[in-house]
Amino acid sequence: MSGDYRGRYGSESELIAALATLFQSGAEKIPADLIVDIGDDAAIIQTAGDLMALSSDLLVEGTHFKMEYSDLYSIGKKAAVANLADIFAMGIRPRFFLVSVALDERFLHNESSKNSILELARGIHDQASQFGVRVIGGDIARSDRLTISITALGNGSKKVTRSGAKVGDGLFITQLPGRSLLGLEQLRKGINIDGESIAHHLAPEVDFEKFFTISRSATALCDISDGLISEAGHIARASEVDINIESAALKHHPNFEKISELAKELGIDPIAAIIESGEEHFPIFTSRIDELGKLDGMKNGFKIGDVLAKAGESGRVMLDFQEEKRSGFSHF
Amino acid sequence: MSGDYRGRYGSESELIAALATLFQSGAEKIPADLIVDIGDDAAIIQTAGDLMALSSDLLVEGTHFKMEYSDLYSIGKKAAVANLADIFAMGIRPRFFLVSVALDERFLHNESSKNSILELARGIHDQASQFGVRVIGGDIARSDRLTISITALGNGSKKVTRSGAKVGDGLFITQLPGRSLLGLEQLRKGINIDGESIAHHLAPEVDFEKFFTISRSATALCDISDGLISEAGHIARASEVDINIESAALKHHPNFEKISELAKELGIDPIAAIIESGEEHFPIFTSRIDELGKLDGMKNGFKIGDVLAKAGESGRVMLDFQEEKRSGFSHF
Repeated sequence: MSGDYRGRYGSESELIAALATLFQSGAEKIPADLIVDIGDDAAIIQTAGDLMALSSDLLVEGTHFKMEYSDLYSIGKKAAVANLADIFAMGIRPRFFLVSVALDERFLHNESSKNSILELARGIHDQASQFGVRVIGGDIARSDRLTISITALGNGSKKVTRSGAKVGDGLFITQLPGRSLLGLEQLRKGINIDGESIAHHLAPEVDFEKFFTISRSATALCDISDGLISEAGHIARASEVDINIESAALKHHPNFEKISELAKELGIDPIAAIIESGEEHFPIFTSRIDELGKLDGMKNGFKIGDVLAKAGESGRVMLDFQEEKRSGFSHF
Repeated sequence: MSGDYRGRYGSESELIAALATLFQSGAEKIPADLIVDIGDDAAIIQTAGDLMALSSDLLVEGTHFKMEYSDLYSIGKKAAVANLADIFAMGIRPRFFLVSVALDERFLHNESSKNSILELARGIHDQASQFGVRVIGGDIARSDRLTISITALGNGSKKVTRSGAKVGDGLFITQLPGRSLLGLEQLRKGINIDGESIAHHLAPEVDFEKFFTISRSATALCDISDGLISEAGHIARASEVDINIESAALKHHPNFEKISELAKELGIDPIAAIIESGEEHFPIFTSRIDELGKLDGMKNGFKIGDVLAKAGESGRVMLDFQEEKRSGFSHF
């Protein structure tokens, strides 16, 4: 409501122009279906009668990321990864981002503050354009906590939701989660025992193409945003089934030893680390077990559990047939 | 990153479920092109080969609205209006919203805090569904300022951008701006001289259908978000023209006397109130003057200025042929 912050960079439009230049840069040519880019009341895309997927994520400093743990470029990358994952997790290819940011005093004073916003934008842009995704709009506001709101859109002809899991299906993952939680724990303690897990926590590298391979035979599909138990719970409730996860299966995963050792060194129960670690963004999915051959076995899916008929009113997740109450991370 | 806020309402998913119930309520039946609604990684809509418009707005407490001036229901309505306006201002019909909110301590304690979030959501829902717009997704996070991020999507077959104004066109408005600024000024001073302008500031009622009537003959079109001068500037720069606004024309508007009297009572220059008042969300547009007849004259367009060949490097706005530096509101 106030014009108090006007003119810090000359004007908001000067910053928007700088952001537009960044987001319109890169090797990719302008997509044919992008009719109006950044700079009008709204962006316009032309669609071709297929499915469009839409998802929004809100990230708040202190709640979702800490400036003392990460640099703005990595924060931007991580924000982009979370949004890409939501669209890929529908079996759909992301195409466009709208990126809104609320900035605090630190970003408002001089040229170096402006550069730090551009670092954040560059992280988003680099991660997004790696998958052909283009930022086509957004908003800038003032707050006292750095806040990033991204809406992702994608299109495709086939979708995989959370609700298709069938009794008798297996539950599969492609990578063992845990590293993000263990990376964060090291950051919290101010130690560096395993740089790879810290890097994974700060800006996860995800092979998103795997979501498409999987979507060919998956009955239900999510990305691991909030933790394995939490995502399995999403599938169980949406599909009206129970899901049992076997700790023995988790322990047989080729990466279990490595994660287990690191967890113990940090004083964390290895199974807890695996089932509660969020922001992994790898796929978790259900599939008919006899379809697994087509997935090239462990390369695309490692079985960790089974889909069962639901016993209660709504779908539940069990670990070794005991109802599991741990729910992973929540940013709320 | 932390699970600290888990369980305040039982769980985030309980709140999401309550929000989904609200957003899925109402007389409207589920749109045929809505394939996946709230509750998966992303919403999915099917498109039919036409244009899709996309726009995001970020609203932060203290910057864009104040809880001491307004109730949450009105804040929700106003947030929805701003987002509807951005899509209508492209000559496109809005269809869907994604709504993300960051909540602070006040919203996290008990049933009454939960109800206050639902009041906010109800304001968004009521305003949106009045125009057939449905909330199909979003996110919830924690912050220490109430923050609302809305992405609006619409589709249609014809668009009107900011960049089509031609030398010789007239500049038109449908209503005289000013009331929003004068309403806010009364709130700031803690007085109530004119309840109508206060109400207009807190939750503007906009006849959005007018945007379609106008879009038939408009060469460039915006809604007045940041103020008349600011929006005319958007058109001038995007269209590479100069725009001259005549104060005499503003003074001839049938509502000038009323706005002028109120402005004077509040110690504000009436012309300043008119050209700087933001969040009006009425249309401002350029059109060939001989097209005006088709617009049914003053009913749909009141001429306040002219589009001229640009004299400088980029398009400028003049008031009575003097370059105008006042730029209206900025929330940044």
